[in-house]
Amino acid sequence: MNNNKKSNMTNIWCMVPMREKTLTMDTLNPQVKAVEYAVRGPIVLKAGEIERYLEEGGTKPFSEVIKANIGDAHAMGQQPITFLRQVVALCTFPELMDSPSFPEDAKWRARRILQGCGGHSLGSYSASPGVECIRKDIAAYIEQRDEGVPSDWENIYLTTGASDGIMTILRLLVSGKDSSRTGVMIPIPQYPLYSAAISEMDAVQVNYYLDEDNCWALDINELHRAYQAAKQHCQPRVICIINPGNPTGQVQSKKCIEEVLHFAYEENLFVMSDEVYQDNVYAPDCQFHSFKKVLYEMGPEYFSSVELVSFHSTSKGYTGECGFRGGYMEVINMDPEVKAQLVKLLSVRLCPPLAGQAAMDVIVNPPQPEEHTFKQFHQEKSSVLGALAEKAKLTEQILNAVPGIKCNPVQGAMYAFPRIFIPPKAVEEAKALGMQPDMLYCLRLLEETGICVVPGSGFGQKDRTYHFRMTILPSIEKLNVLLGKVRDFHISFLKEYSGLE
Amino acid sequence: MNNNKKSNMTNIWCMVPMREKTLTMDTLNPQVKAVEYAVRGPIVLKAGEIERYLEEGGTKPFSEVIKANIGDAHAMGQQPITFLRQVVALCTFPELMDSPSFPEDAKWRARRILQGCGGHSLGSYSASPGVECIRKDIAAYIEQRDEGVPSDWENIYLTTGASDGIMTILRLLVSGKDSSRTGVMIPIPQYPLYSAAISEMDAVQVNYYLDEDNCWALDINELHRAYQAAKQHCQPRVICIINPGNPTGQVQSKKCIEEVLHFAYEENLFVMSDEVYQDNVYAPDCQFHSFKKVLYEMGPEYFSSVELVSFHSTSKGYTGECGFRGGYMEVINMDPEVKAQLVKLLSVRLCPPLAGQAAMDVIVNPPQPEEHTFKQFHQEKSSVLGALAEKAKLTEQILNAVPGIKCNPVQGAMYAFPRIFIPPKAVEEAKALGMQPDMLYCLRLLEETGICVVPGSGFGQKDRTYHFRMTILPSIEKLNVLLGKVRDFHISFLKEYSGLE
Repeated sequence: MNNNKKSNMTNIWCMVPMREKTLTMDTLNPQVKAVEYAVRGPIVLKAGEIERYLEEGGTKPFSEVIKANIGDAHAMGQQPITFLRQVVALCTFPELMDSPSFPEDAKWRARRILQGCGGHSLGSYSASPGVECIRKDIAAYIEQRDEGVPSDWENIYLTTGASDGIMTILRLLVSGKDSSRTGVMIPIPQYPLYSAAISEMDAVQVNYYLDEDNCWALDINELHRAYQAAKQHCQPRVICIINPGNPTGQVQSKKCIEEVLHFAYEENLFVMSDEVYQDNVYAPDCQFHSFKKVLYEMGPEYFSSVELVSFHSTSKGYTGECGFRGGYMEVINMDPEVKAQLVKLLSVRLCPPLAGQAAMDVIVNPPQPEEHTFKQFHQEKSSVLGALAEKAKLTEQILNAVPGIKCNPVQGAMYAFPRIFIPPKAVEEAKALGMQPDMLYCLRLLEETGICVVPGSGFGQKDRTYHFRMTILPSIEKLNVLLGKVRDFHISFLKEYSGLE
Repeated sequence: MNNNKKSNMTNIWCMVPMREKTLTMDTLNPQVKAVEYAVRGPIVLKAGEIERYLEEGGTKPFSEVIKANIGDAHAMGQQPITFLRQVVALCTFPELMDSPSFPEDAKWRARRILQGCGGHSLGSYSASPGVECIRKDIAAYIEQRDEGVPSDWENIYLTTGASDGIMTILRLLVSGKDSSRTGVMIPIPQYPLYSAAISEMDAVQVNYYLDEDNCWALDINELHRAYQAAKQHCQPRVICIINPGNPTGQVQSKKCIEEVLHFAYEENLFVMSDEVYQDNVYAPDCQFHSFKKVLYEMGPEYFSSVELVSFHSTSKGYTGECGFRGGYMEVINMDPEVKAQLVKLLSVRLCPPLAGQAAMDVIVNPPQPEEHTFKQFHQEKSSVLGALAEKAKLTEQILNAVPGIKCNPVQGAMYAFPRIFIPPKAVEEAKALGMQPDMLYCLRLLEETGICVVPGSGFGQKDRTYHFRMTILPSIEKLNVLLGKVRDFHISFLKEYSGLE
């Protein structure tokens, strides 16, 4: 039956009619259309174009594009932690167990992980919540981190990076057809995974604004305000916290965390605590407090009732192993029947990547002082974290010396989120072009200097304030050059749009 | 403010009141509740319980649980392909480039992959669609597989296993608030990822039944019937095909594929072709035909218009690398604007795991006859595929010799899906227990023999027919024992419920 058609058609290839497609912008799931994800948005596509243009011999006022848009440490030249890679390589190719160039400390960890894998192979599926011995190591790590607060390994679920865990938990909470009545409280500015997930699930984004004038601290009164306002049109069910903050770099005080947990308790909110930067604290007067430990210290009434999920990842900290897509979540006080539903949902995707699970295991079970590998491991770790602390300080100092830029201290995480003054003339020009003023600013910065940063509008900000997010990950030398270029660009941008040129 | 409460509470831990939870079975997203995933369902949880019981010294009529429920080759003792693991280990720990025990063929591949990674590290994020050189290798592989049919690397998207790709494409197609009017045509029996995804997205599952009496072939008339019936209550927009079939083991003929594509063309359906078992064809009279190649051969009217996505994976074939979560999809004729939306959606999850991408690269770019590593690679590959072919035949033969079991030939993939006769008395007993008759059967099989297989009801089957799915992955010796036990169990089950005992 097709043969006739076929022979008719082969001669008239050029006459093939334009047939309407099944999947078009009109028929596409509108919730997908609504998703925005600035960290890899239009500015990053533009950066890619410029990179290709340079590669093909094109010329620009700069020789390379510096991608300060994403927390991708290795891409910025950070070296992997040797011990972590040794363990994962041993798991991948167990013949290396016979190699004298691999340390015994790494070998026994690799053996132990493989013992937990089906057929002793990284190529088998794990149970959907992850390899059992890795879950146990994570629980032990959490107990140590939280100075004895108990952690049950059956509450630990390995994930494909933290993003996967966050999406999964939101999927449980955002209620199908009623989605547009489910409120999800998120900080503004926020990491745009949250807004993207909320759009995709058609839930209601409930913004609570962080206090820029107070180092981006979370203000409990603002939380109350946001909640009460949201209750007029939806049912807020979950509060998301990012601590240390992305993009703000703020590290929350214990008192602040207590207030949030008390609020969640009073209002019956499910707490999602994004703690992927827990090892990235630089300011000497700041310390990471886990939501779980603070909850425990608030007493049994709280610790036995507030539903809390905390997320961690291999991608940040001192390892920066983004490509392994490793992570975990600890789930506290979840209804046992709901937990069974969570396991079912995870099982549809089978399991997180085993190499990422192995990488996570090294992070929670690193070399101990009595082990031979400790010294090198400790040196590498300190070197990464020391450099990050230095870069955090440097970034804040240089940016604050620029007229029209104000940058809060980078207390933790991997980003600066400076406020930039954009002259009214530039704001008008942007509006005429149908873009956000900080998008215009960042596009100009990219085109004139090759520096790729993300407009503040991608993270959310108060009306008529403008920011950008940049990572502090480039090497000190490169960061110095980068910040110098930002300063020069900013001054000339101000001049241009203030009519001083 | 909390301190008072805290000191009050610490003394009355035991008196903590039961506070209502935020997330309960009543408030859980009902679409999550609706999800079913038999491959890791209740029978597998039961198998885990029995395993733990045995480990703790409990006794059963058997000494081990054999998990024939999931296509997890390495867990069943299949050895990894050496060359693949060498390349991934080199990428993970590039210091091994200096090791004389790694072949040059593996080293240059690893170097090339790392060249394509940010900072030359597997620890950096890749572009969301995957590492560029790997996408190019995949396109070259497809062109070779399809004897010259062009493949554009920009149509290739790496995924986190095939499941991730399938979910992502369905997410584009199933239209938000209108979801319950979007029909997704799937074969029955099917791989339950499809029904799970449809439940989660609240779309309409449109069943087309495969023809058991004709080796589970797809019958075009049945496709028309299912489509017309579905049109009464929804808009069928997509047709899913699994070829070679899971769980059926059927390999589709070229004629059959032409008919499906013609049907999709006429009815404007988006085609999702799950081709993860493309390397797993055993029957001498069968051959894998890719949907894309057949579409091409139908002429430009078809090849330039039918929207088609094909999925592949590292988890199956001769590598069986499930734990790496590698995979890709090739997207044909997708509207360019929709493609941009796809990239945006993928970017929210950042990227698929890099080790899985590297594993995928080895599969599409294996050692060539002129390379030193070819011989060993080829031996290992042939050994795995040869054994699978033998096991496919063995399974069919032994099962068909059992009265009350009828098994179609396992032409491809990794499973047998035999039809089992269940006596009316057993059917009644199952109904009284509120379970499917084949669930009762499989639970009894597990409890009496330690063999874990999945009831046919988890995949879908015609009313009043019963099946189970078992993998053919155990070693020949183990498979012989397993099939013998199934035979003995079946005979005694028949006796028991036919009142002959």
